[in-house]
Formats: sequence, structure tokens, C-alpha cells
Amino acid sequence: MVRFALIGAGFIGGVHAANLAAHPDVDLVVIADPNVERARTLADRHGARWTGEVGEAIAADRVDAVFIASSTDTHAANLRRAADAGVAVMVEKPIDLDLAKAIDVARYVKASGIPTMVDFNRRFDRDYAEVRRVVEAGEVGTVELVQLTSRGPAVPPLEYIAVSGGQMRDQAVHFIDLARWLAGADPVEVYAAGSALAEPRLTEYDDVDTSVLTLRLATGALVQIDCTRRIGYGYDERLEVLGSTGLVQARGHRTGTVARYGLGKVVEDGMDAGWFERARPTYRTALDHFVASLLQGTAPTASLEDGIRAQAIAEAATLSLHSGRAETIDYPVL
Amino acid sequence: MVRFALIGAGFIGGVHAANLAAHPDVDLVVIADPNVERARTLADRHGARWTGEVGEAIAADRVDAVFIASSTDTHAANLRRAADAGVAVMVEKPIDLDLAKAIDVARYVKASGIPTMVDFNRRFDRDYAEVRRVVEAGEVGTVELVQLTSRGPAVPPLEYIAVSGGQMRDQAVHFIDLARWLAGADPVEVYAAGSALAEPRLTEYDDVDTSVLTLRLATGALVQIDCTRRIGYGYDERLEVLGSTGLVQARGHRTGTVARYGLGKVVEDGMDAGWFERARPTYRTALDHFVASLLQGTAPTASLEDGIRAQAIAEAATLSLHSGRAETIDYPVL
Amino acid sequence: MVRFALIGAGFIGGVHAANLAAHPDVDLVVIADPNVERARTLADRHGARWTGEVGEAIAADRVDAVFIASSTDTHAANLRRAADAGVAVMVEKPIDLDLAKAIDVARYVKASGIPTMVDFNRRFDRDYAEVRRVVEAGEVGTVELVQLTSRGPAVPPLEYIAVSGGQMRDQAVHFIDLARWLAGADPVEVYAAGSALAEPRLTEYDDVDTSVLTLRLATGALVQIDCTRRIGYGYDERLEVLGSTGLVQARGHRTGTVARYGLGKVVEDGMDAGWFERARPTYRTALDHFVASLLQGTAPTASLEDGIRAQAIAEAATLSLHSGRAETIDYPVL
Amino acid sequence: MVRFALIGAGFIGGVHAANLAAHPDVDLVVIADPNVERARTLADRHGARWTGEVGEAIAADRVDAVFIASSTDTHAANLRRAADAGVAVMVEKPIDLDLAKAIDVARYVKASGIPTMVDFNRRFDRDYAEVRRVVEAGEVGTVELVQLTSRGPAVPPLEYIAVSGGQMRDQAVHFIDLARWLAGADPVEVYAAGSALAEPRLTEYDDVDTSVLTLRLATGALVQIDCTRRIGYGYDERLEVLGSTGLVQARGHRTGTVARYGLGKVVEDGMDAGWFERARPTYRTALDHFVASLLQGTAPTASLEDGIRAQAIAEAATLSLHSGRAETIDYPVL
Repeated sequence: MVRFALIGAGFIGGVHAANLAAHPDVDLVVIADPNVERARTLADRHGARWTGEVGEAIAADRVDAVFIASSTDTHAANLRRAADAGVAVMVEKPIDLDLAKAIDVARYVKASGIPTMVDFNRRFDRDYAEVRRVVEAGEVGTVELVQLTSRGPAVPPLEYIAVSGGQMRDQAVHFIDLARWLAGADPVEVYAAGSALAEPRLTEYDDVDTSVLTLRLATGALVQIDCTRRIGYGYDERLEVLGSTGLVQARGHRTGTVARYGLGKVVEDGMDAGWFERARPTYRTALDHFVASLLQGTAPTASLEDGIRAQAIAEAATLSLHSGRAETIDYPVL
Repeated sequence: MVRFALIGAGFIGGVHAANLAAHPDVDLVVIADPNVERARTLADRHGARWTGEVGEAIAADRVDAVFIASSTDTHAANLRRAADAGVAVMVEKPIDLDLAKAIDVARYVKASGIPTMVDFNRRFDRDYAEVRRVVEAGEVGTVELVQLTSRGPAVPPLEYIAVSGGQMRDQAVHFIDLARWLAGADPVEVYAAGSALAEPRLTEYDDVDTSVLTLRLATGALVQIDCTRRIGYGYDERLEVLGSTGLVQARGHRTGTVARYGLGKVVEDGMDAGWFERARPTYRTALDHFVASLLQGTAPTASLEDGIRAQAIAEAATLSLHSGRAETIDYPVL
Repeated sequence: MVRFALIGAGFIGGVHAANLAAHPDVDLVVIADPNVERARTLADRHGARWTGEVGEAIAADRVDAVFIASSTDTHAANLRRAADAGVAVMVEKPIDLDLAKAIDVARYVKASGIPTMVDFNRRFDRDYAEVRRVVEAGEVGTVELVQLTSRGPAVPPLEYIAVSGGQMRDQAVHFIDLARWLAGADPVEVYAAGSALAEPRLTEYDDVDTSVLTLRLATGALVQIDCTRRIGYGYDERLEVLGSTGLVQARGHRTGTVARYGLGKVVEDGMDAGWFERARPTYRTALDHFVASLLQGTAPTASLEDGIRAQAIAEAATLSLHSGRAETIDYPVL
Repeated sequence: MVRFALIGAGFIGGVHAANLAAHPDVDLVVIADPNVERARTLADRHGARWTGEVGEAIAADRVDAVFIASSTDTHAANLRRAADAGVAVMVEKPIDLDLAKAIDVARYVKASGIPTMVDFNRRFDRDYAEVRRVVEAGEVGTVELVQLTSRGPAVPPLEYIAVSGGQMRDQAVHFIDLARWLAGADPVEVYAAGSALAEPRLTEYDDVDTSVLTLRLATGALVQIDCTRRIGYGYDERLEVLGSTGLVQARGHRTGTVARYGLGKVVEDGMDAGWFERARPTYRTALDHFVASLLQGTAPTASLEDGIRAQAIAEAATLSLHSGRAETIDYPVL
């Protein structure tokens, strides 16, 4: 039984709370949120204690692990608290929007020796995991080209955009991580081009809503990522890996299998409405993985170093958006 | 809040217990099963009381509704108990394998005036519900031909076959109900042909494992149903409704969207492994419907009469299997 | 080089003329049609002679083979002429609408020893041929259930209906042949049910436009065929063979691969507009097969006996439409 | 009737010869090829004259139009001959591998006033034409992102590579043209990255076999193109256009619709074996368009200017391959 503290009782905190409460090997001990009403409501629903004091929740004698689902600007401080308390930690990405600060805290946490995992939940998507299995098994030969598509239904509110770090750090970073993970190798350079087409005011924030990235791996293999913030047809995520002997695809998800045949056309069920419909099951699977790694003493699949590397690539991509040229990626040593 | 007693703590009882426990408008008060160990284990998991005495569980001052998920041979007696106690009841199909007994108890329960629903859960499949919406909205015109496919992964154990009532009453009946519900009309005659191909010993039980049915509605519209007990490719359920102006299909469910392209072929994810993978979400949706109908005082969609009518058709189909001719269907008046 | 006479210069005669003219091993010598204008126009286009006298066209010193694409009521007489002349013959189905007459002429032709082939062109559909290959290779195990769908865009004119022999003999017969060919076995009994839904006046002709057939093979395997004359979504032909270890399907043909994604729906290209779009390539492949069989001295795949057998089944199906029971099929000995 | 000379009797010349011969409004007068044996064989098959002298074939009193399907290095000279003779001309792309020479000859031909068309046959693919119709009709809103995939089955022989101009000019150029045509606008800059993964010896030719391009239109819309020379799963061409309100895709072509269901997988028919299977019908449609434009005196859809512009983009992409930065595109004035 792993005793958990959950930090953060917002929307995604609620998702994690339900998964923690339902997990047979987890005891959800306490939920902490500066908004105590929110903490209390969520804790009551799942039979946990609640507190407004994050530090108290992480106290080591009470919990074995902490799940950090608080706002992004508090991730670093909460990671340090967990390191100080010597408890395992699962943290929503990013470690910190500022790469230098993220590196600092990653080093600090690494030195503490606590087990850690970054919640790159898309690695736990059933279809993506199967794509990786196919690639790792060599069923498509050597990786030559990876393509990833990330398209959301709406531009986030400008207040969110203002603190998001921009499309590379906020949206592309998930697919950058997937690309590394699927290809089993790190890119050495990245080119990015972007435009503010859906929301021209993004230019005031030096941001874009429609962008494409090209990554080059050391092997010469190439990666294409396209990211758009607003599409008119729901939510669209898909990817494919082209190897020397074959191709493996994970197609977009539809809401159903109903087809309506009329003259000259067939109207089929459309795409998921939003990211949550697609991603929902991945949160539970990611948690399962983290808990199993704690119980078995193994390293979880998405480390702080994975988080730092994805951020370093997003950083270089942001640079490329402005420079108009392929930028070399520097990976910090943790 | 609707206070529920659950009767039956087997596999499907466990599914219903979890749905009842998670329902925001339900208080799962008690779980009853003659196997008290099983009742206790399940009740403990969901914070309910347990008992080995079904009669006690149905006592009206404690519960508002009873969910009958006990073995088929006890459905009738438990329905009578619920009628006597004046509590609402949701019951797994069939009411009773013996149609005459089923009619008797349906009349008894109807006379009592309690709200009742038969758990024809497939009506709550997202895709089938959408097909019905399309048909009801007239988007394919007048119904002319309905086709339903029901194919399972394995012949059930012979002990189960012995008490199942045969493939018409046990398997086809679900799709007979769907056909009535989708077409919005009752068949007037049925022809059935069958063979024991997967398990020749079924002939000792006067049963078949591969059968096809033709139903004729009063409008002249036709229905085809194919039922097989054992296929080599998992579980396959699909249907289509051909109307005068178009066609609407609910296709088979796949386990994922991954496609592996090789020379001359594309290997895609296969069908669900079994019925439960396909049907799982329908149990919760069916329960939602029943609870909402109780709270709103409306009639649920699948009545005891629906259950009796589907059984009457299965009965005539069983007769046709032997007679080799289309049999007229007699619908009893409740 | 095989020297051909083509009998019949109507629509389908024109299709055959083009295929004959383009075939590298064929010399299209003459085209005969009582409508000499039609014969002349078609012959001029393909550099052939023309005549209004069918008998003259079949004269043995001029041609090696005759392709009978004349009106159905002349097939029998033209077959006899070919037999008398000792030239090979390919004939559009049916041999004769009257089964007894068809048997007579089949016996006469068989006795003559000339090579013959009935143009069951669907056997030469690329997808159906692949389904048969899969079945014959045992890739789906033993055949247990075959399903075939045949749906056309419009009820033929009543003048055509009047001489068509009815839906079983005119439409279902093609799929009856496919079922025999795919299953590799003959049905022993057939049940059919039908209605006149698209064109109620068909009842005046004792005919139906919406029908379903159930065939039972000697092995116990079952076949379902659904035939409709008028659908609102184009032309729909598909089939599947369920074996003991797997399933093989030939899906319906679409006019293209374009998909238009909007909110909640994906609009894909629809079905073929009519049978000719689907069947066009099969006529050439069937001709290739016949010519190759002549050059190599092998027996073509669809014999007069195949034609007679399919007709015998259609005959029993017609009987069943009225009797409401499964009818035993008698296969004549040629 | 348009009297045609065909220049070039190689593989693609043979394709054009058959289409010219079958066209109801075309009289294929003469076929010219320095290889007179080849010219004679092809001409005999289609009832045309033959010659080894290209100049003679283009003589204006004999023909109205010339179809240039000779080797790439002769395109420019043959275009000049046609301009001098005052006959219309359809020419296989490219005009000349050297952009400066191509511009020169395009100006020369333009000044002559003869009708011209570059055979960008992919514009005549049924599915791509439908995608363009959807885009032009505004059914997906304003174009924001275009993606094109071009993947061939095998690296061409090194002798071909040596004179091909490289992957940008030889392969990508077709999809660059499609991108311009679909988006209805010209790119202003292009970035390209590439590797020699399938055939490392390509580096000796300063060439690549796996490349990705990013184009930016003046509107800010982006284009991604991926080109690979050798894939292990046949031939794969597809594209999609993302607009502000929806998406339209043309999917890859399969060889059939057969699906084989086994445990946990469905094996479907694979991709076309090569480009010709996919492109075959486009040659005829492109010819139809050219002939119709001549008869109606309208401008054909793919002009010499279109050819020059696509080449200018391929030129800048080739530059970018080496510079590692987005290159501005200069469009020459003809």
C-alpha cells in the first residue's frame, strides 16, 4: 500500500484524486490546496483528509509519495519539499517553465535520490504504447521518419497564453517527448515555423497557434510535428513512425462507429470533442505505472531528465521560431 | 437518492455493484446472495450491508428499488417479492426461461403497479442508441431491412448450455429485442435455421451454435439476424438498418486504432476479445436510465412487456428451427 | 489468336466488343445483331464486320468462338447454333429463364463437346477472387456462414420486371452462384422471404424488390443473401465468409478516399453509383479467363452446369417465397 | 479532331500513345523517337506513322499539337521546335532541370503564343481534384496547414539519381505544385531537411532519400511535405488541407477492400505497389483536359509558369537542404 498526498484540487487534481482513490494499492491520505474549500470538497468525496498547507501534506511520516498537480509555478517548490521529505514524487509537466530553474530543481531532486516521475501521460495511451512496442520490436525496421499531429479545438484564453511559455513549451513539448520516446533517440537540432492564424492577438504575446517542427536525430532520421490550437472539427491527435521496412500509425480517435450512407457520401462519427476524452484513460495507466515502479523498486518510464530534455528541445524550437533556422539542441547534464 | 438492494453477487452482480456505488443518486444499501461469503466480500468493497436472505434485502422500509442480478431461475420469485414489497425493480433478462411462467409473473408484477425495467443493456450501447436516433429522426426513410450480427468467441460450457434454453432464447433474444426497438415495430413471423458446427455435442441438447433468423414485420420489412457461439477472431457485434432513402450502420468495435503497414497488407487492431469489453459501458448507462426514470416518474425504455415479446419471438424461432418453416408469432396480452 | 463473333450490340455488347477488340489474343471478326444499324455502328468502331444474321456470324469456318450477349430469350437458340457449328461459346447468364428449357439446351451443348462458359462475371471481381483464395487456402478454417449483400439503386422498369423471371432468378442468382463458388459446396435447401416495398406494383407481377434468402449446405454451413432493388445510397455489393478460425470480408466499393472532417462528423466519399462502376473490370477479366482456357485447353471456371445449378436454387427460392418454408433443391443431371 | 505528334516512345510514351489513340477527339499521326525500333513498334500498335526525326514529326502542316514525352534533357529543344512550328504543346515536367534554361525556354515559348501545358498529372487525380474542389468551395474555411506525403517503393538507380537534379527537383516538385494548387497561393519561403538513409551512397551525389519541407505562404499558412524514396510497404501518397473550420483528406490508395479477421488483428489489403498503379488514370484525365482546352480555346490548368514556379521552390529547397535555414523564394517574371 502506497500512502499518497495529492497537491492540487483543481480539475486535473480531481481526475488524479479519483484514480488514486480507486487504486487497490494506494491509500489517498490527504489532499492539499491553498483553496481549502476546493481541497475539502474533493477530499470528502474520496474519504481523504484535507489541508491548505502543502508542506504539512508532504510530511514524510504520513505519506510515501506525493502527486504534484498544483499550478505550474509551484511545481519546483513542491518538488524540493518532496526531496527534503524523502518521499517519492509524481509531477505534472513541466518541472518549471523556466528551463534554468527546472534544471536546478531536477538536480536537487536527483541528488536526494527519491523516486520521481514526470506525468507524460501520452506515453500511456494504449495506441501510442502499441506503436512503441511495434517500433521496439523492430517490426518496421530502423526508424527513418516520425510524424505527430496535435490539434486542439480552441485557442486557450489569453490569460493562459500569457503564462503558458508559448506553443512550443506548452503544447509541442508533449509531442516532442513522444517523438524522443518513440524514436528511442534524442534530436540534435530543431527547426520551427509558426503563425498566429486562429487568434492574431497571440502576436502580442510573441506566440503562435499554428506551427510545424522538424527535428533531426543523430541517426539522420527526421521528425515532423504539427501543432494547432484551434480546429473546427474537435480534437485531433495522431502519429506515425516510418521505419526502413514498414510503417506504424496510431490514427485519430472517433466518438463511435456509426456510419450513415446517403447518395454520394457516408457520414461517419467525428473526432473526440477535446483532449480529455482522448487522454482520460492515460492518467490511470500512468498512475498504475508509477505505483508499480514504487512497489517493485524500478525506475518509472518518464524521468525528470526526460522532462528536462523535452523542455530543452522546446526551448530550441522557440528560438528557431524567431531565427528562421535549424537550432542545435544543448542537453544539460543533471 | 434511491436506496437500492442488489440481489446477486456473482460476476455481473459485481459490475452492477460498482455502478450502483458510483452513482451520485444511488445509495447501495444492501447486497444479498445465498453465497454469503460472496455477498460479504462485494458489500465490504462498496460500503454496503450484506445478507444471505434475499427476502430481507427487499424489505420495503429499507430500500426503494431492487436490482435482480441473481441466477435466471430465481428471477421470477424475486420479481414477485419486489412486487409484494412494492419496490421498483430492474431485472436481468430473461424474466423466466419458461415463457408461460414469465407471462404469469409479468402479469403479477404489472398488477402490482411497481416501476420495472428489463436490463436489455444493448439498447444503451452508444452506437446502437445513435442508430435508433437516426432511424427515429427519419434520416434513412422508412425501415425496409434490418441486419444484426452476434458472434461470440467460445461455445459456453455444456452445463450452461443445458440450462440456457438454447441459442434462440439465450443469445438471439438480445438481438431480437434490438430489432424490435430499432424498427419500432413487432415481427409477425420468424424463420430460423441452425447447425451445431463449433460443438457437435450441442445436438445432444437439441441446440445449435450457428444460426440465422429471418423476421417479417407487419409492414413487410425484413430482419436478418446471424448468431454464432464461437468465432476465431474475438467478439463481433454489429448491425445496420436499411431505410427507403439511406443506410445506417454500427460497425464492430476494435481494440485500438493502430495500423501496421507492410508489403501488400495493413495489419490493424482486431475486434474486442469478448462481450464484456463491448458491453461494459452499457450497464452504467442502463442504470442511469432506470434511476432517472424513477426520480422523474417516467416509464423506462425496456419494460417487462418488451421482455415477454422478445421471448415470444425467440420461442417461435426455436419452433421454426425444427419445423423448417416460418412460424407466426403470438404475443400474449399482459 | 482466337477469332470471335459477338452476338448482340446493345449496351453490354458494346462493353464486350471493346474488351474483345483490345485483347491481344483475340480477333473480333464479326458483330451480329438483328438491329443492323446498331451492329454496324459498333462493328465500325472496332474494325469488325457486321451482320444482321446471327447464324451467319456463327459459321464455323470464320470464327473459333462466339460471345452471346443477345437478349435472354435468344440465348438458348444461339447456344444450339454454336453447338451445331462446333465453336466455343461464352454466354451471358441465364441460359434460359425457363429452367427446363435451360437444362435441355445445356444437355444439347454438353453433348456437342464444345468449350463453354457462363459469364458469371462477379467471380472475376478482384476482391471476391481474393476472398475465394483466402477461403480455399484454409486461412479462415472450415466455412460456417456466408453472407452476401446485393443492393441496387433503382427498381428496373416494369416492362423489364415482366420478363425478368422475378428477383430470385434475375438478381439473387448472381449471388447464389457466388455463394456456391465461395463455399465450394452446393446448398441442399433454401428459404426466401420477400416484400414489394420500393415498388408496390411488383405484386401484380408476383415479384418482390426486398428479399432475404437462407441457404443450408450439406455440411450444415449457412448462407444469408439479402437483395434489394432500390436503395437511396447508390450501389452496394459486399460479402463475407465466416470460417471456423476467422472471417474474410469484401467490403463495399467507394468512389474515392476523400474525407471531410467537420464538428462531430466525417463525410467520406460514398458508394459506387451503379452496378456497372463496380463490375466494369470484371468483364475483361472474365474474357481473359475464357480466352486463356481456350488457348490452354482447360475448363473455364463457370460452366453451363454452374449456370443450371444456380438457376435450380433460384427456382427453389422462388417456390419458398410463396410456400413460407425451406425448400429442398433438386439438381438436374446434365 | 486534334492531330498529335508524340515525341518519345519509352515507358511513359507508351502510356500516352495508348491514351492518345483511344481519345475520340485525337488523331495520333506520328510517333518520333531516336530509337526507331521503339518508335516503330509503338506506332504499329496504334496505327500511327513513326520516325526517328523529331523535327520532322513536329512539322506544322501535319500536326496541331505535340506531346513531349522524350528524355528530360530534350524537353527544352523540343519546346522551342514546337514554338517555331506554331503547334500546341503538352510537356512532361520539368521544362529543364536547369532553372535558368527553363526560364529562357519558357519565355521563348510564351512569346510564340502557342498553347502549352505542363503535365502535372497529379492535379488530375480524382481524389486530389475533389480536395481542391472542397477547398475552393470554402468548405473547410481559410487554408491554414497543408500536409503532403510522397513515398516511393525503391531508390532509383544511381545513374538516374546522377541526372535527376536531386530529390527536391525530381520528387518533391510534384508535391510543391500540388501545395500551390491546393492552397491557391505561392509560398514565400521554404525550409528543407534531408538524409540519405535508404541509400547512403546518395551523399556522393549530394542527394538525399528522406526529406521534409516546410513552406510558408504569404498568409502565414504553412505546408509540410515529406518525401521518401524507399518504403517497405509499397507506394504511399496522401495529403490533407486543414482550414479554419475543417479538414479535408485524400487518403492512401489500397489495392482492394478485402479484410481478413483473426484473433487480435485484421489484415487488410495493402497500398498500391508503385506510383503507376496510383497515377495511371491521371494521364488520361490530364490529356482530356489539354485536348478540351485546345478545342475550346481556354487556358489549361498547369501552365509553363506553374512549372517554373514549382521549380523555383524546389531550387530554394535544395539550397535550404545545405544552409539549414528557411530560404526566401524568388519567382522569375516570364
